[in-house]
Amino acid sequence: MSAYEDLMAFQRETTALGQIAGRLGWDQETMMPRGAAAQRGEEMGAIEGVLHARRIDPRVGGWLSEIDDAGLNGVGQAQMRHIRRTYARTQKVPAKLAAELARVTSEAQGVWAEARAADDFAAFAPTLKRVLALRREEGAALSEGGDVYDALLQDYEPGATAESLSQMFGALRPRLVDLRERIRAQPQPKGPEGTFDAAAQMELTRKIAVAFGYDLTRGRIDKAVHPFSSGSGNDVRITTRTSATDPFNCLYSTIHEVGHATYEQSIAQEYHLTPLGEGVSMGVHESQSRIYENQLGRSRAFTGWLFGQMVETFGDFGISDPDAFHAAVNRVQNGYIRTEADEVQYNLHVLLRFDLERSLISGALEVEDLEAAWNARFLADFGFAVDKPSHGVLQDVHWSVGLFGYFPTYTLGNVYAGCLHQALRSAVPDLDDQLSRGELSAATGWLSENVQQHGGLYRPREVIAKACGFEPNEGPLLDYLDTKFAAIYGI
Amino acid sequence: MSAYEDLMAFQRETTALGQIAGRLGWDQETMMPRGAAAQRGEEMGAIEGVLHARRIDPRVGGWLSEIDDAGLNGVGQAQMRHIRRTYARTQKVPAKLAAELARVTSEAQGVWAEARAADDFAAFAPTLKRVLALRREEGAALSEGGDVYDALLQDYEPGATAESLSQMFGALRPRLVDLRERIRAQPQPKGPEGTFDAAAQMELTRKIAVAFGYDLTRGRIDKAVHPFSSGSGNDVRITTRTSATDPFNCLYSTIHEVGHATYEQSIAQEYHLTPLGEGVSMGVHESQSRIYENQLGRSRAFTGWLFGQMVETFGDFGISDPDAFHAAVNRVQNGYIRTEADEVQYNLHVLLRFDLERSLISGALEVEDLEAAWNARFLADFGFAVDKPSHGVLQDVHWSVGLFGYFPTYTLGNVYAGCLHQALRSAVPDLDDQLSRGELSAATGWLSENVQQHGGLYRPREVIAKACGFEPNEGPLLDYLDTKFAAIYGI
Repeated sequence: MSAYEDLMAFQRETTALGQIAGRLGWDQETMMPRGAAAQRGEEMGAIEGVLHARRIDPRVGGWLSEIDDAGLNGVGQAQMRHIRRTYARTQKVPAKLAAELARVTSEAQGVWAEARAADDFAAFAPTLKRVLALRREEGAALSEGGDVYDALLQDYEPGATAESLSQMFGALRPRLVDLRERIRAQPQPKGPEGTFDAAAQMELTRKIAVAFGYDLTRGRIDKAVHPFSSGSGNDVRITTRTSATDPFNCLYSTIHEVGHATYEQSIAQEYHLTPLGEGVSMGVHESQSRIYENQLGRSRAFTGWLFGQMVETFGDFGISDPDAFHAAVNRVQNGYIRTEADEVQYNLHVLLRFDLERSLISGALEVEDLEAAWNARFLADFGFAVDKPSHGVLQDVHWSVGLFGYFPTYTLGNVYAGCLHQALRSAVPDLDDQLSRGELSAATGWLSENVQQHGGLYRPREVIAKACGFEPNEGPLLDYLDTKFAAIYGI
Repeated sequence: MSAYEDLMAFQRETTALGQIAGRLGWDQETMMPRGAAAQRGEEMGAIEGVLHARRIDPRVGGWLSEIDDAGLNGVGQAQMRHIRRTYARTQKVPAKLAAELARVTSEAQGVWAEARAADDFAAFAPTLKRVLALRREEGAALSEGGDVYDALLQDYEPGATAESLSQMFGALRPRLVDLRERIRAQPQPKGPEGTFDAAAQMELTRKIAVAFGYDLTRGRIDKAVHPFSSGSGNDVRITTRTSATDPFNCLYSTIHEVGHATYEQSIAQEYHLTPLGEGVSMGVHESQSRIYENQLGRSRAFTGWLFGQMVETFGDFGISDPDAFHAAVNRVQNGYIRTEADEVQYNLHVLLRFDLERSLISGALEVEDLEAAWNARFLADFGFAVDKPSHGVLQDVHWSVGLFGYFPTYTLGNVYAGCLHQALRSAVPDLDDQLSRGELSAATGWLSENVQQHGGLYRPREVIAKACGFEPNEGPLLDYLDTKFAAIYGI
C-alpha cells in the first residue's frame, strides 16, 4: 500500500472510534442509567485516550512526509488538507498543555454549573481565569506569532478571521438594534394557549422531521434535556424536548437539529468515515440548521401548512388563523437567554459574546470585569438590564469548557443561511407554493445538492459562495429580516 | 508505580474499552437505525482492533514477568490468575489463526442464518467444517498435547473437564428421560388464553425485575428480538420481548436476564473494571439466571403471588386458580427448540449438543454425518422425530460462531442452581412464606452475599462449593425436579 492508502486506512479507523465516542455521548444524554455516570466517565476517558494516542501517533508524521499532495486528485488533496491541518495543530501544542486543558475544562464545567445555580459569578471567575489562561497559551502556541483569537477560531471555522467577522458583525449590529427598537414599539402578537400533550408533540415532530428530509432509517429521535444532533454518515441521531405549554419549542428545536442531521446524512457516501465525511465547519453547519428552522420553517408559506397540522393535532389552541400563527412563531420578545431568542435578537446575543471574548483573549478585558462589561453591553443592545448572572454572563456553558472562538460561528451561520435563502429563492421560484403544502423536498434537495453532499471537500466560505453564486455577505440576511418583520409587525 | 499497578491500570482501561464494545452491541440490538449496520460493522471492527492490540501488547508480558504473585494479597493473586490465563491463551494462538478465526466466524453466522431460513443443512456444512477445523487447530494450540475439547472449554468454564462433565451428565440423562416419559403419559395442564397487552406486560415485568433485586438506577429494560443481559458494574442492561398470546415468555425471559444482570450488579464495587469485576464463568452465570427463573420464579409459592398480579393486570386469562397457574408455567410439552424448553427437557437438549460437539472436536463424528446423528439422538431422548433442520441441527447460532465448549455450561448452571437452591432452603427456612408474598430479598440477598459479590475472586466450582457447603453435584437438581413435577403431574 502507498503511504496515502496507509494513512487513509488509519484515519478511517480513528474516525470510526470517534463515532463510537460520539455515540457514547448520545447514550449518556438519552439512555444511560444515572448510576452509571462515574463508570461512564472512565469509559469515555479510555476511548479519549485511544483517540489521543492515534492523533499523536508518530506514523502519521511519517506518512505525511512521504505523501506528495500534488500527485493526488482533488478529493485526495482535500483529504490531505484536513489531515495536515489537524496534525499540525497537534504538533504545535505541548502534550503537557493539552493534558492540563483537558483536565481543567473537565472540572470547570461542574464549577460553572454550580455557580450558575447559585447565581454567583465570583464563584466561577477564578476557574474561568484558569481556563482562559490555558486557552491563551494554546492560542499563542497555535498562532506562532500571529493573532491568538484567529488561531482559536480555526478550530471551528477554518479560514475565518476575527477582522473579517468583525466587519460583518459591525454592519449587522446597528440595523438589528434599530429593527428591534421599531418592533418593540408595536403591539405583541398572541402566543399559543392551553396544554399540549407530549406524545402528540412527538408524533407531529417526527412527521415534520421526515418532511424536512430526515432519514429515520439512518437516524432516530429521542427526548433529552437539551436538543442536539450527533453522529455522522449513516447513524445521525437527534434529540428534542417537549414543553406542556409551548409546542413551538419541540417543533422548532427538531427542525433545527434536522438541519444539522440532514447535512451529515447527505454527505456523499464515499466520504463517510473520512475527513471529508463531516460538516465542513460550525458556521456552515449552523447555516443548515438555521435555514431549515427560520427561512423555511418560520416562513409564512410553511407556517400556513403547519397551522393546519396544529389544529388537526391539538384542536383549538388559542390562535385562530394562519397569519396570527405566523406572527406567533415569529414573536420578538424581551428575553435574556440566547438559546431562546428570536431571529432578530439572536445575533445581538452572539455579537455581545464575540466582542467580549475577543477582549478576554487579547487581554483588554479582565475576567474580574467581565460581568460588568456583559451587563453594560446587554443594556445598550437590548434596552433593558440583566437581572441576575444566570440570565447574563453565566448562561452559556461555552467558556467554561474553553470554547473561545465558537460563538461567532452562530451568526456566521445565520449570515450564510441568509445568502443561501436568497439563492434558493432564485433557483426554486415556486418555493412558497411548495412550502404552503408542507412540501420541503425542492428546498432541502437544493441544499443537499449545493452544500451538504460536499462535506469537507471545499473550504467553508467556498462551499457557500459556490452554492450562492456570490461572495457571502450580511446583506441578504438583513434584507430578509427587514422585509419579514415589517410585514408581521406592520412597520 | 509498581509493575502490578501499571498492569492493573492498563487492564482497567482495556476493561473500560471492552464495556464500550458491549454497549455498542446493546445499541445494535435495541436502538440502532437499521441503515447504520454497515457503518456499525466498521466501528465495531475498529474497537475490536484496539482491544486486540491491547491483548497482545508486549508491555503486558513485561509486567507479568516482573510481578511476583506470592507477594500479593488474595485479591491480587486472583487478579493475576485471570490476567495470566488470558495472556497465556493469547500467546499460544498464532496471530494468523486468530485473525482467520475472526474472519471466518464473522461470515459463518450469515451463512448459518441463510441455511436455517432455507432449512438446508448442506448449505451450512462446508462453512461449519471450516469453522470446526479452525477451532480444532486453536484447541490443539491451546491444549499443548492435552485434550482439545477441554482446552476450548476453559474459555467458558475455567477448571472444568469434559470427563467430569460427562460423568455428571451421564447421571442426569436417564433420570431426565424417565421423568419426561412419565410426565408425557399424564394429561396436560391448560395454558393461558386471550391476548395480552404489550405495555401491560412490560409494566408487570419491570415490577417483577425490581422485586428480584434488579437496580434500575444502574440498568434499564428495553425490548429486543432476543432477550439478553449486557454490561458489567454500574451499567448492566437487559432486554426482553413480548408475545400477544404468551405472557410467560416476557415475564420469565426477564427474570432469567435479571439473574444474569443482578450477578453483575452485585459484584463488589472495588472489583469493578478489573478482571474480578465480571461473573466468573458461564456456568456460574447461568446458575444465577436459572435459580431466579426456575427454582424461585417457577416455584409454587412465588407463582401463587404472580397469579394475583396476572389477574390484576389482565383480568380473566383462562386460568382460574394458583395451582392451575403453577402447572401452566411449568408445563412439559413436546418441542424441538432448546430455548423454549421446560425445566425437565432443557438439559436433554444440552446433553445432545455436548456429546455431538465432543465427537466433532475429537474427529469421531464428521460434519457430513452431524444432521443424521442429531436426529437419531433427538428421537432417542425426546420420543419424537425432528421434522426439519431449523427445528434440529440448524436451530442454534453457537457452532457457526465457533462456540464449541459453550453448551455444557448451560446444564452445569442448572446443576449449580439445584445445589444453591438446596443450600438456600436450609439458610432461609421460611423462604416459601416470603415468595408467596412476592418477597425475594432474602433469597436474592443470600445469593448476592454467597455467590454474586465475589465476582472472579474464587474459581467457578469453588464459589459454588463455598456457598453450598458441599461439593456441587447433580443430585439436588434431580431431586428437586422429581419432587416438583411429581406434585404437578400427580406421578
